[in-house]
Amino acid sequence: MTPRLDAQMAFLTEACRLKSVNRATPLCDGSRPENSAEHSWHIALYALVLADQAPAGVDINRVIRMLLIHDLVEIDAGDAPIYGNHDAAALRDAELAAATRIFGLLPADQGATLRALWDEFEANQSPDARFAKSLDRFQPPNQNLAAGGGSWTDYNVGYDTLVNRVGDKIAHGAPSLWGWINPRIRAFFNV
Amino acid sequence: MTPRLDAQMAFLTEACRLKSVNRATPLCDGSRPENSAEHSWHIALYALVLADQAPAGVDINRVIRMLLIHDLVEIDAGDAPIYGNHDAAALRDAELAAATRIFGLLPADQGATLRALWDEFEANQSPDARFAKSLDRFQPPNQNLAAGGGSWTDYNVGYDTLVNRVGDKIAHGAPSLWGWINPRIRAFFNV
Repeated sequence: MTPRLDAQMAFLTEACRLKSVNRATPLCDGSRPENSAEHSWHIALYALVLADQAPAGVDINRVIRMLLIHDLVEIDAGDAPIYGNHDAAALRDAELAAATRIFGLLPADQGATLRALWDEFEANQSPDARFAKSLDRFQPPNQNLAAGGGSWTDYNVGYDTLVNRVGDKIAHGAPSLWGWINPRIRAFFNV
Repeated sequence: MTPRLDAQMAFLTEACRLKSVNRATPLCDGSRPENSAEHSWHIALYALVLADQAPAGVDINRVIRMLLIHDLVEIDAGDAPIYGNHDAAALRDAELAAATRIFGLLPADQGATLRALWDEFEANQSPDARFAKSLDRFQPPNQNLAAGGGSWTDYNVGYDTLVNRVGDKIAHGAPSLWGWINPRIRAFFNV
């Protein structure tokens, strides 16, 4: 068992670095930027609690697993703020290389399983991936609202940009959650 | 659906505060203390990856759910460092009051379900709880080893104290993980 466990522990120790990747979104109290590890915890908790908001057929245990691993590539590729300007093709290449390296630390069978789960999340096609992606987009607006603006203020974002980059994806995978937050966002932007 | 979702969102926004509860254990690179939210993410990932180290009959999806919620009471009660001296009865009272308040933010049925899961974790008797508790105890020594001492140095901890407060619990729920890390800890302490 030891060589297998050695590889698992190498992966888990590498994962520790995700705690040092900062995001554009602040904590709810606005005191500092959120990091990608605590963000991953929070949206896994969102999945657990909001399971009854998921469309029929969604497997919440798979959604939670997806969300636990979804940002690991940022250890190498960094977090690309959703309202920032970046070279999408270059970012995609960096994330694919990161996935190969990081999931490659695991025993081969396990690395392949988690890589497939990450690929499914990225493709945003299956019901599980669509709900997972919705939660990934739904949490930051809640924190921006709590913090009084957050990354919307920092990036000078207006309501239409927000709908285009975030709202449509939430509505795609979790219509009831978009229905809940949209009026709150409209009130914030006075639109 | 809205009043139910209002309550779920009040709980999830309150949960954000766990990101501001610092622990005694440092990140693997020693750069700062770990907080309880990113710790919760990390050990949920440990559960996902180390599922094949769990004793027979353990339900990893339940273990992951337990680990996602296990530290929420620290929002009110704080993190009690495992090597610190504290009034165990007072801490227990504070954690029970915190559980009542925080799980009480949820819709009643959901609050009762998550409270029962937290109580099961705390009791450390069921196979799922024992494995979950082992992971909660197994991750910090790995980070202390990576960081070159961490909370062992800060609290002047020796090998026997470590075995008493941590090692026995790891061995209780996950013997193979204790078998893996014990020689590494012995080498660190030169015993």
